Amino acid sequence: MADESAKISDYAIATLGSHTALQILKGAHDEGFKTICVCIRGQENIYKSFGVADEIILVDSFVNFFEIEDQLIKKNAIMIPHGSFVSYLGWEKVCDIKMMHYGSKGILEWESDRDKERQWLKAAGIMLPKIFKTPEEIDRPVIIKFHGAKGGKGYFIANSPGEFYERIKEYPAEDRFVIQEYILGVPIYSHYFYSRLTKELEIMSFDKRYESNADSIGRIASKDQLDVGIRTSYTITGNMPLVVRESLLPQIMKMGENVVTESLKLTDHATGKPLEKGLFGPFCLEGIIDPDLNFYIFEISARIVAGTNPYINGSPYTWLKYNEPMSTGRRIAREIKEAITTGRLGEVLG
Amino acid sequence: MADESAKISDYAIATLGSHTALQILKGAHDEGFKTICVCIRGQENIYKSFGVADEIILVDSFVNFFEIEDQLIKKNAIMIPHGSFVSYLGWEKVCDIKMMHYGSKGILEWESDRDKERQWLKAAGIMLPKIFKTPEEIDRPVIIKFHGAKGGKGYFIANSPGEFYERIKEYPAEDRFVIQEYILGVPIYSHYFYSRLTKELEIMSFDKRYESNADSIGRIASKDQLDVGIRTSYTITGNMPLVVRESLLPQIMKMGENVVTESLKLTDHATGKPLEKGLFGPFCLEGIIDPDLNFYIFEISARIVAGTNPYINGSPYTWLKYNEPMSTGRRIAREIKEAITTGRLGEVLG
Amino acid sequence: MADESAKISDYAIATLGSHTALQILKGAHDEGFKTICVCIRGQENIYKSFGVADEIILVDSFVNFFEIEDQLIKKNAIMIPHGSFVSYLGWEKVCDIKMMHYGSKGILEWESDRDKERQWLKAAGIMLPKIFKTPEEIDRPVIIKFHGAKGGKGYFIANSPGEFYERIKEYPAEDRFVIQEYILGVPIYSHYFYSRLTKELEIMSFDKRYESNADSIGRIASKDQLDVGIRTSYTITGNMPLVVRESLLPQIMKMGENVVTESLKLTDHATGKPLEKGLFGPFCLEGIIDPDLNFYIFEISARIVAGTNPYINGSPYTWLKYNEPMSTGRRIAREIKEAITTGRLGEVLG
Repeated sequence: MADESAKISDYAIATLGSHTALQILKGAHDEGFKTICVCIRGQENIYKSFGVADEIILVDSFVNFFEIEDQLIKKNAIMIPHGSFVSYLGWEKVCDIKMMHYGSKGILEWESDRDKERQWLKAAGIMLPKIFKTPEEIDRPVIIKFHGAKGGKGYFIANSPGEFYERIKEYPAEDRFVIQEYILGVPIYSHYFYSRLTKELEIMSFDKRYESNADSIGRIASKDQLDVGIRTSYTITGNMPLVVRESLLPQIMKMGENVVTESLKLTDHATGKPLEKGLFGPFCLEGIIDPDLNFYIFEISARIVAGTNPYINGSPYTWLKYNEPMSTGRRIAREIKEAITTGRLGEVLG
Repeated sequence: MADESAKISDYAIATLGSHTALQILKGAHDEGFKTICVCIRGQENIYKSFGVADEIILVDSFVNFFEIEDQLIKKNAIMIPHGSFVSYLGWEKVCDIKMMHYGSKGILEWESDRDKERQWLKAAGIMLPKIFKTPEEIDRPVIIKFHGAKGGKGYFIANSPGEFYERIKEYPAEDRFVIQEYILGVPIYSHYFYSRLTKELEIMSFDKRYESNADSIGRIASKDQLDVGIRTSYTITGNMPLVVRESLLPQIMKMGENVVTESLKLTDHATGKPLEKGLFGPFCLEGIIDPDLNFYIFEISARIVAGTNPYINGSPYTWLKYNEPMSTGRRIAREIKEAITTGRLGEVLG
Repeated sequence: MADESAKISDYAIATLGSHTALQILKGAHDEGFKTICVCIRGQENIYKSFGVADEIILVDSFVNFFEIEDQLIKKNAIMIPHGSFVSYLGWEKVCDIKMMHYGSKGILEWESDRDKERQWLKAAGIMLPKIFKTPEEIDRPVIIKFHGAKGGKGYFIANSPGEFYERIKEYPAEDRFVIQEYILGVPIYSHYFYSRLTKELEIMSFDKRYESNADSIGRIASKDQLDVGIRTSYTITGNMPLVVRESLLPQIMKMGENVVTESLKLTDHATGKPLEKGLFGPFCLEGIIDPDLNFYIFEISARIVAGTNPYINGSPYTWLKYNEPMSTGRRIAREIKEAITTGRLGEVLG
């Protein structure tokens, strides 16, 4: 044990101060790691207030990450990438980072490109909403999503080619979008963790997003909505905890297993060869369950997502297995700890 | 203490792998019981993954329960019935099971029959939505519920006799239904536990269901809803945690006490005599709170419900009393444990 | 340490049995205090059932508080004021109480008067919805709130002067109201704790209210809503847990800091001098986040609010800092305990 903790203390866990940093840093602390938070100047108070960071490195913008990478390398820090990390740097630059990086870099291209993502999910037997190639094909409710729409803004719904052309006028700057079937049902985000060390897949938790104004317009009576001309937008403001109907869990587990299995067949963009490492660590299937209990998936996130934030002290599901508080952030730290203490760290970096 | 644990180890807790099995099995483990999960072949991975079952018995369908009942009897297992158990077997067959069964079998008939259920709740002074005997009487918003509608599908709303006859056309196969006043307010499910050993009633938790598509159509602007012709359905996909306004708790406690008291006056269908055992263990009052804080109840479940699943690690209310994680599943196991160790097991079986 | 517990045992923590009493009393217990619950006759069972009160004092109504104040003084009890306490007594009478009172009495006038509240928040640089002085000025969706509306009833929405005059007819008894811009976005309640001992501000948790019928009308398809003529009401029936997007936390922290800082400049109604003590202890900023992530605040509560009730066993945020269950109620008790044991009790009374 003394030996083990000695090894852990040679490493630090680092992440950017945003998105899921609080749980990542807290979880790393709980597993005995030193923690480093890379913060935007002026936003460090939060990470100080919650006492989760042993060290804070300030930058003016997350895009300046490469200026401080050497500092992190000297501290023997392992970067835990999250949504903001990938979003600010872009997957290509994430592939360029030299410091230790938890998770599979190769998978990021597949996650970041809507067509490749779809190809992957389809191969895994996942039910996907239909994509319409041209507005003329619209024959049912569809949702139009702009490429690179940040935080859920800039989506709209249309029911016909005519309505599409009417509404697209409001977005004159946008010419790259996808027209997706609008599946009528409840949004549910399924959070998984796949251990590369034990080859076990775990269901970690579920959540629904809390979107502005999508999750509040229903509070306005229809008559008032029509008077005012309410339109829906989907800006993410937070997340709410939930559990799913227990009889759906076997199918949800199977879906997770399939995307992991298929990820091993995906190819690297540079070499054209199969990825050295498939999907592992935390990931999320983002979907809709319709009234017939069909579970459609519209996106996969191949890293920790903010929907795990309600579960900093564990979720109903992680309490089942662990009997101690196990956030997704802490699960990552435990995996790294086990990798270090068994001499397998290279297997969980990528 | 050694003596006590020796006794517990003579028994196993068993349940069907669905509905609330995860918390029932976890709770039984926490109280020191051996656990058995009766699973549908192909769905056992979930129960293995979460590590809650010491033993898994596979069946092709839950209706095959009687084929494996003898195995459970040999293992001295106590069955914890949940919604799926009652739903798959039907209350008449549940009355026929020979293995030890936690809870009152006699109450199941009263819970399963909408008329009897109503009679019971009325006698307990509970506010109920009005029932309309014929479509012609409809003079306000009503919800039409088909008998035996599984998982909340096959309900519809109508505002007049004309609308009723218009919409019922879509359900040509259905001729048994109830026409119920549609109470406008928020759905809240109140979870109780009544101990037959201590005669104390406990408020365990509250939840709201997460229904498809009912809980997502509000995300669609009214104009879009009208364009597409959205209709509501009520398929249960999960549950969300909530707490109720504290000033409502005395009334909610009183409602629970009243249904327990009245349950002792209900009669057995076979003998016509009062039930040997009234309602005990976990139960749920499913209702609506209107803007004047009237709490209408539309259903009672006389056993554990899935709305307790958000609270596998305890609810805000059970933390108050227990200071340790106390799910409804664990509360059941603790009751059985206390019954066994005080020689009163017979009192909690039925 | 023996000395410390001796001191604590000289005091009791008291509150009225409603609102947030369960967590206040539980939290006080957890910190080693004797607890007293002042209950309305007939409502005491709840507080007995959860085992949070060492002593229960019965009154016929909370307005009879002054009849039992002497009893509380003799027991050396410290009153924890909550929403029901302030609401039943009125801020003027709260200023008259002679027993030890946790928190700043002077701030209550500023919280209770919509104009003064607005002045305070504006000075703190908080974004506020626009107020319209006359109905004629209405040029966008507005919400009309009656002064003293209890529990969220008696609000309505209008989109024009004409609609205002149409709808106000339904409230003939009301002539005092405010016409506020209706901000379209999701409601979020931010819960803070400001320690007067350490001068640190903590983010404790977030919630959304569960309002009848506002949070259920969205479950009714628009066509049905229009048929039936649904109107929104806002009666609070409970609260739901949520977490906010992590990148919003720095701004939310800053908003809390600003209202604390500005509170020190507010004046006492009697003397016209600056308040002896500004805002401290628990408080809440009640607001709306719009799709552009602007956080508008429509109200401040300068004491514990019911939105902290989901977190009796700690919130995702308090788990980060405390590593033990820390409700807002317990945080108050800990502050008082630290004040007592360091001889600074006077600093947290007001």
